[in-house]
Amino acid sequence: MEVMTLHVDAGSGYDIIIGSGLIDSAGKYISSALPKAKRLFVVTDSNVSPLYGARLVASLEIESFEVHTHVVPAGETSKSAENLISLWEWMTAHAITRTDAVVALGGGVVGDLAGFAASTVLRGVGLVQIPTTLLSQVDSSVGGKTAIDLSTGKNLAGTFYQPDLVLMDPETLRTLPDREFAAGMAEVVKYGCIWDAGFFGFLKARPGREALMADIAHILHTCCDIKRQVVETDEHDTGLRMILNFGHTLGHAYELSGGYARWTHGEAVAAGMVTAAKLGVALGVTGPDVPGQIEAILSPLGLPVAIDCDFSDLERAVGIDKKSAGDDVTLILLERIGAVRPMKLPKAEVLDVLAGMYRR
Amino acid sequence: MEVMTLHVDAGSGYDIIIGSGLIDSAGKYISSALPKAKRLFVVTDSNVSPLYGARLVASLEIESFEVHTHVVPAGETSKSAENLISLWEWMTAHAITRTDAVVALGGGVVGDLAGFAASTVLRGVGLVQIPTTLLSQVDSSVGGKTAIDLSTGKNLAGTFYQPDLVLMDPETLRTLPDREFAAGMAEVVKYGCIWDAGFFGFLKARPGREALMADIAHILHTCCDIKRQVVETDEHDTGLRMILNFGHTLGHAYELSGGYARWTHGEAVAAGMVTAAKLGVALGVTGPDVPGQIEAILSPLGLPVAIDCDFSDLERAVGIDKKSAGDDVTLILLERIGAVRPMKLPKAEVLDVLAGMYRR
Repeated sequence: MEVMTLHVDAGSGYDIIIGSGLIDSAGKYISSALPKAKRLFVVTDSNVSPLYGARLVASLEIESFEVHTHVVPAGETSKSAENLISLWEWMTAHAITRTDAVVALGGGVVGDLAGFAASTVLRGVGLVQIPTTLLSQVDSSVGGKTAIDLSTGKNLAGTFYQPDLVLMDPETLRTLPDREFAAGMAEVVKYGCIWDAGFFGFLKARPGREALMADIAHILHTCCDIKRQVVETDEHDTGLRMILNFGHTLGHAYELSGGYARWTHGEAVAAGMVTAAKLGVALGVTGPDVPGQIEAILSPLGLPVAIDCDFSDLERAVGIDKKSAGDDVTLILLERIGAVRPMKLPKAEVLDVLAGMYRR
Repeated sequence: MEVMTLHVDAGSGYDIIIGSGLIDSAGKYISSALPKAKRLFVVTDSNVSPLYGARLVASLEIESFEVHTHVVPAGETSKSAENLISLWEWMTAHAITRTDAVVALGGGVVGDLAGFAASTVLRGVGLVQIPTTLLSQVDSSVGGKTAIDLSTGKNLAGTFYQPDLVLMDPETLRTLPDREFAAGMAEVVKYGCIWDAGFFGFLKARPGREALMADIAHILHTCCDIKRQVVETDEHDTGLRMILNFGHTLGHAYELSGGYARWTHGEAVAAGMVTAAKLGVALGVTGPDVPGQIEAILSPLGLPVAIDCDFSDLERAVGIDKKSAGDDVTLILLERIGAVRPMKLPKAEVLDVLAGMYRR
């Protein structure tokens, strides 16, 4: 098995290991990364458990770990305070100690929820992320953000908590529905947009899921390496990390307008990136060819390049509605493919330009 | 107003400020420590709110903060997951931002609960501790441990999260019941035992609450300064910080045996320190005069120097029961007053000695 390794210098430092079939060797890597761990608390969801649960547990038990498993229902509603409490009670009832670890097997929901539980039970235990979706492999499993949703909004409670190990098995992507694969690709394209024109070209030369899967380990490695550099510079999200939000501010308005049901996060981000590029062109910041280039790479993946939404929702998301404080707003724009440029702009100017775009 | 300041070099660094009447100047100190904060979320309890709530809020509003207040019922049961969620929902419903802050006004329960909420809402906002009990002033408000209780046990979920500011107004101790004052004194005496024989003598020379209150600012300063040194060395509780547990392991057995109702934490710790000293003498580690010296300082405060409890509970607390892993156990013993000595000892030896003490 060919394996790629990335070391992330955040928290006390940890490895991201990428390799086909890695799930069957998870126990070996975990016992090397967490030599003091005796009990492992696997958190997974009702979609992933039947696919990979038994293989993971077998690979852990072969290394003599005491393994406990907790399955939450698949879907965003599982990122709840109620599930967080259930995980705390479950782990402490099974006598978890500070040197034991939580293993998150699944997508972003499982990773965020299990990560939050791991960071707070006994004030922090070990954490291994085994992301099984493209979105979580290139985004949420790297960077140490954990969260649950509240009745007041998404991701409103959580922690910054770096894992001890991230294991990515690209084979798990084969069982993803096309729509979820495409949603993950929106974030992949984002890394090309903000950081690496060569990578953007590499993706463009591989249209369609099959061509991408042929080089998926390289793709995962490149995305995680970019995120690594950003996170190492700004672990607690007070500066540089904002560039990872390219396309996300407008995307958030689209997700909201669809009640978080009509559009996946990735779809909303796809349309958000194109609109952000158009906004940048209209503001004279972004090269005129950029929106077309992004559209040309997103469309073949079946991702939307525009989404209708109330103008008032856009205003609020961008922070230029009447309720938002201050005279300026910071937008994450592109100068060209591969070159991101956060810009502080007068709200009035942004409002004018955005209104003009939507009047056309 | 005479004010003492201590700087703690943990987290991003913060000041502990001690001064009579400080509550009325809280707003001024908070706006200087957290210049970006606009909204303050005061968490307090039903005992403390009527005594100091209005004065605190007035001092905050005079500095133009937008102030919201949440009162939890007084008592340990408020350190619950349900209250944590209520605080999250309350703060986010009032549009808290990452530069705003939580202000914990009260004893350890309020400080632990509000601290946990502050460390996790939006993945961490500002935190000001205004401890109003002796126990919280010398112990829980310094060191950055936050927690709630679960159905499976006390303090099982929480975070390490350093405050941005700690304000102590010794005047708030005047409204404490004698029993709570004495309970706090057990922790004060502990600092003398483990770190500072001179301070132990200073306390011995001031028998009774009135004599102690005459020098209370100095006492608070000394205790916080000792805890500061320990916490700076071992922020995440992986080594030196264990010396702060002197008397607490046995104390925990006593608290448990009384169902957490019969004995206060401080009372259990008082008896725990005397028994730990006697255990140290029996093991040949502790000077023979030490137990008597500790008794002589605790008894006049009305604190118990011995508490009956099932031997099996003691075994479990010390970690020498059959279920505890390993052959050795680490005990926090004293060599003499002012000199702590963590010792790894064979369980069999500790069991023999402890059994011998209880047979006598």
